[in-house]
Formats: sequence, structure tokens, C-alpha cells
Amino acid sequence: MKVDGVPYRTIWLAPDGTTVQVIDQTLLPHAFVVRDWRRMEDAERGIRTMIVRGAPLIGAAAAYGMALAMAADPSDAMLTHAYTVLMASRPTAVNLRWALDDLHALLAPLAPPERRDAAYRRAAEICDEDAEICRRIGENGLGLIRQIKPRSGERVNALTHCNAGWLATVDWGTALAPIYQAHDAGIPIHVWVDETRPRNQGASLTAWELAKHGVPHTVIADNAGGHLMQRDQVDFCITGTDRTTRCGDVCNKIGTYLKALAAHDNGVPFYVGLPYPTIDWTLERGADIPIEERSAAEVSRIAGRTAAGAVATVELLPAGSPAANPAFDVTPARLVTALVTERGVCAASEAGLLSLYPDRARAA
Amino acid sequence: MKVDGVPYRTIWLAPDGTTVQVIDQTLLPHAFVVRDWRRMEDAERGIRTMIVRGAPLIGAAAAYGMALAMAADPSDAMLTHAYTVLMASRPTAVNLRWALDDLHALLAPLAPPERRDAAYRRAAEICDEDAEICRRIGENGLGLIRQIKPRSGERVNALTHCNAGWLATVDWGTALAPIYQAHDAGIPIHVWVDETRPRNQGASLTAWELAKHGVPHTVIADNAGGHLMQRDQVDFCITGTDRTTRCGDVCNKIGTYLKALAAHDNGVPFYVGLPYPTIDWTLERGADIPIEERSAAEVSRIAGRTAAGAVATVELLPAGSPAANPAFDVTPARLVTALVTERGVCAASEAGLLSLYPDRARAA
Repeated sequence: MKVDGVPYRTIWLAPDGTTVQVIDQTLLPHAFVVRDWRRMEDAERGIRTMIVRGAPLIGAAAAYGMALAMAADPSDAMLTHAYTVLMASRPTAVNLRWALDDLHALLAPLAPPERRDAAYRRAAEICDEDAEICRRIGENGLGLIRQIKPRSGERVNALTHCNAGWLATVDWGTALAPIYQAHDAGIPIHVWVDETRPRNQGASLTAWELAKHGVPHTVIADNAGGHLMQRDQVDFCITGTDRTTRCGDVCNKIGTYLKALAAHDNGVPFYVGLPYPTIDWTLERGADIPIEERSAAEVSRIAGRTAAGAVATVELLPAGSPAANPAFDVTPARLVTALVTERGVCAASEAGLLSLYPDRARAA
Repeated sequence: MKVDGVPYRTIWLAPDGTTVQVIDQTLLPHAFVVRDWRRMEDAERGIRTMIVRGAPLIGAAAAYGMALAMAADPSDAMLTHAYTVLMASRPTAVNLRWALDDLHALLAPLAPPERRDAAYRRAAEICDEDAEICRRIGENGLGLIRQIKPRSGERVNALTHCNAGWLATVDWGTALAPIYQAHDAGIPIHVWVDETRPRNQGASLTAWELAKHGVPHTVIADNAGGHLMQRDQVDFCITGTDRTTRCGDVCNKIGTYLKALAAHDNGVPFYVGLPYPTIDWTLERGADIPIEERSAAEVSRIAGRTAAGAVATVELLPAGSPAANPAFDVTPARLVTALVTERGVCAASEAGLLSLYPDRARAA
């Protein structure tokens, strides 16, 4: 999508053919900075510190991390080392495992001198595939939006949590792809954007990318969505997911579950946009997903712009008050109206997912 | 309760017998500052800008506002003017109306020269009554806590939203009074404190007062509570309320409804602590309560301590992204396990409330 009129993706290969470049999402919305990754360790740190984030983008970043490792040293030892190091950078993200397994399976049988180019080629393919997948999620979600009769009688009001826009992917986004397509198709759509504490990806990233594209939106505290649903101000919710089980339980940014409860209580459809690598066919119950506990400092401190335009971090808590920071929660399939994938729309259930991915059926 | 070993209330009469003093809660937890109110307009501004907040404290502050007005001018015209001005300072708070009606009914029949002293006397009585009411809410809630078998097998884990502690009242608090009494009785209790965006009363006030009293607690993002309930980390929730209808619908800080939904979904008891003036016997349906829309700047900006120890406000949103800020929501009675008042514990229903307040029954 565009930034100040210039088309961008979130990750791309620099003209030197080796350096990987990414938008530093930790600095948005206050500064737009492109980072160079020259070594595998840059990619590992970039994923771990959330310079890049969002399940699909993490997969693409991990693929380029493998390519950077092969550029430095195409040995078997490095292949194993890079796989292990990158896998540990964000334990909850299933796309990370998917991309690393894909690259490892491709590279391991090759002679070391062939690995570098093969890795870069495959990383570029993963990026192109992701953009196309997201475009299709957008098309399929647009079909759902066209069926909505706005409760307000005027604009269609969406609510989204966290950032599952183009910044979370290579391009288009997952949850936001249908919204971009609806907006571009002339449907009057407005988005309630959960700020998404503690890291404020909604206020920082979703608001920024919607503003850049011209989509009407309003930022709200995470606490407000239930009230807006009670008072008929939300026509549908749509979020992304970091991992969805084969039975349709949705692991996503902490707080997603609370919005799904409110949607269910008020008869508001709750959709989840997801590309196929996000489906974890090995897991049935979301309750079994290990939840990443992140630094308490993400809760106790926050960064913003000062009146002078600088970015400053301030401390919010009294001295001596600890904080806890579980980063994800699991929304049970019973609260999800439908899953929107690149192949179509289905129920959040094993039967629903298998209707779109019949090759994943287990032997009887 | 105590601040650094010194007993305080949140509002009191200065030794000069006219000036009212309050703790400036907008500066907590970063600075502890006492403000002098010398004119009725100081009280109005203090309520409106949330230097004092919390339903019971707003009532006490409004009563002292009337006393300050009578000290300046005990005329009928001023009585009407002060009543009108103070009533408009926080439209959602039923205690405001209760205290102003009480003072007006007391003062109107008196000769103007008698009004000043009568108003100060009644304001002091309201403060003493509030402290006693909160102490009894604490006793009644303690009975509920004693019955809890902790899911963790060890400490009792409470979750609270916003600040309904002693800072929200004259002393003791409503939701936190049972917690203080349990802690003082030797029950191992720990409190998950919702930070309560956008004004962060949990992170700023609840954490501060629990820390000062030595109650173990952990601050969490508002998004985290549902996940903690799903994973058996919460034994009960307890909040305050700004207004509860005769049928038991609970109007409280925005986001309360989401926690009540999660508690209901996970079989976690959801209690509400409230003093009798918070019950609005004239209203049945919470959906009819007008919800205060506060400044968008409360969402888009946040204040905290810099590394240098100064308090700074930073901007969180991209330029050009608007914000909305509904300040309260309504939790339907069906999601509330019990109401805890100064008279005892009852179901969140008209029958439940009438069992404690039989004088409020309507003529058949």
C-alpha cells in the first residue's frame, strides 16, 4: 500500500541483492524509518523486538533471516543454527515455524553453494504469495461486508483489535484487507480502532495505515467496544489471528476474547481474517496454546510524542507496583461467526476448515 | 487510610473552618498534592476535572461545594445557582444529585444567616456517614471472600477495574473495602488491577493505594482479565459503580461490562460494592442511562513520569486520527453475581435490592 503516495511493502530486498529492508514498526506512528538487515541476527532481533510483527510478516522475515544466514555461511551447521535461533524469536507465531520448516526442507538437500540463491528466491516467493493471499482474503471478506445492513442506517461500522493490516503482512493485511476493498469499492465504511494496550498497535499502526489510505476511523480505548456494541454502533468485528487451531479456536492479541464475548452478547458478527499458514492443523484446543508472557515494562511504560515533537517514554505506575503482560488470548470457536481465508468463508470449526482445505482431513 | 504512615481522608475541612482540602487525584501516582478549595467554583472545577472522582467522594465534594457557596453568599439566589452549577459538573454521578438534593432540602427552609453553619455541619456528617458505610461494605464483602476456595489452592486472586478504593470515597472505598479487610484479617489476597484506560485510574490510583497499604497486587492491561479468568487466575471480580438501577443494572467505568462477560463465561463471581446513595430507584433499565462522552484527548494523550522524574504528557495517535471516549458502560444485572451494600449482600435484581431496602417497595 502507499505511504505519502509511494507504494511500499513491509519487507523487501535492497538493490544490492543481499540486504533486507523493513519498515521499523516500533517507531510508528511518530517516525517512518527503514531498517537494513545485513545479518541473520538482525532478523532475529527484528522479530523479537517487534520491529516487524504480525503473523504473516514474521513468516516472511524469518524466511529472509534464513537467506541472510546462508549468505554469510551456507554450511549445515549454520542451517541448523539459524533455524533454531529464529524459531525462538517469537514462540507463539505459527507462521514462524511454517516459514522456517519450509526453508529448511528446501535448503537441507541442496549443496551448500546453492543454498544462498535458493533461500533468497524462496523468501521473495513467500512475500509475493502472501500479498496475493491477503488480496484474496480481502475479496472474500468484501462479500460479507456487502451483505451487511448498517444498524445506523448509514455507514457500515467495523471494529478491529490490534493491527492486522498491511503492516502486519507483506501487503494488504488480513483483517483490514476486506475493509480496504470495501472502501475502494465505494461502500461507506468506518472503523473503530481498539488502541490495543499494552503495545498500542491499534492506535499506532492501524490508525496510521487507515489514515494514510483515507479510510474513516476513530480510535477508542480497548474498554469501549462492548458499550459501542450495546448501543448499535458496531455492525461487525474483524480481527487477525496469530494461530488458529484445526477446530477454529483463535489465538490473537490479548483482549480479542473480550470483544468476541461482547459481539456474541449483542448479536454482532465476529469475523477472523487469516491466511492458511496461520492454521495450526496439529492443535485442536486453543486452551493448549502456550501464551507468551512479555516484559512488564510494556505495561508500565509508554512512548509518545512530546509537544516538541520528540518521542519520549514515560512511566505510568507508582514505584513498587509490579505488572504482568500476557500477550495473547484464545477466543473459543463458539464465539467466532466465520473465518475468512484466501480460499473463502467458513464456519470456525473442523468441518468448516476442512470444507476449504479438504486435503487436511485425517485418515478415518 | 494511611499515606506514608499519616492517616488521611480524601476530603476534609481545614483548621480555618472554611477552606476545604482535597487530595489532587489527577497528580497521583506521580505527586501527592493537597488542594485548597475556597470558593464553590473550586469545587465545581475539582469535580469536573476529576481532581476528586469516585461516586461517593463526588457526593461529599458537592456537599462541601454547597457549604462554600453559603459561606460566600447565603441567599436564595446563590442556593439555586450553586445547586445548578454543581449538578452540571458530572452528569452520570447519581451521588451528586443525591447530595445536592439533600443539602438543598436542608438549607432552603432555613433563614439565610443559618445556612452556612448548617451546610458545613451536614457536609461533615455526609463524610462521616460515607466512611462508616464503606466500612460496613467491607465487612459484608469480607464474608464473601471467606467462602472462596482459591482456584490456585494458595492465595485468593481478586480482579478490579478502575478505582473504587478509599480514594474514590471519603475512606475505605467500596470495591476495595472488602479487600482491605481481608488483607488485614490475614487472608492471603492478591489483586489484579486493570489499568483502566483511558484515564488509568487503576494503574494510577488503585495500584498506589494498594501499594501504600501493603496489599499484594499486579497491574495488567485492560485486555488481560479475560485470559486470566480462562486460565483460573481469578477467584472473584469486584468493582464499584457510579449508578445502579433498581433492577440491578450496573453503570460503571467503561470496560466493566467486558469483565463481567468474561467472569460469566468462566464461572467467576462478579461482585459490585456500592453504598445506598448509588442506587437510582427512579431507573429500571441501565440502557436508559445517558453515558458521558469525555474529551478525545484522554484517549490520544497520556501523562507519566520521565526518566528525570518530571510529569510529561505525550501524544499517542498519528496526526489526523480522531478518538472517541465514552466514559461508562452498563453491565446488565444478569451478569452480576451479587451486590454488596452497607446493609448486606443481595442479588442484582429489584427483589434482591428490596430485600435490603424494603422501604423502597412501590405501592401495589
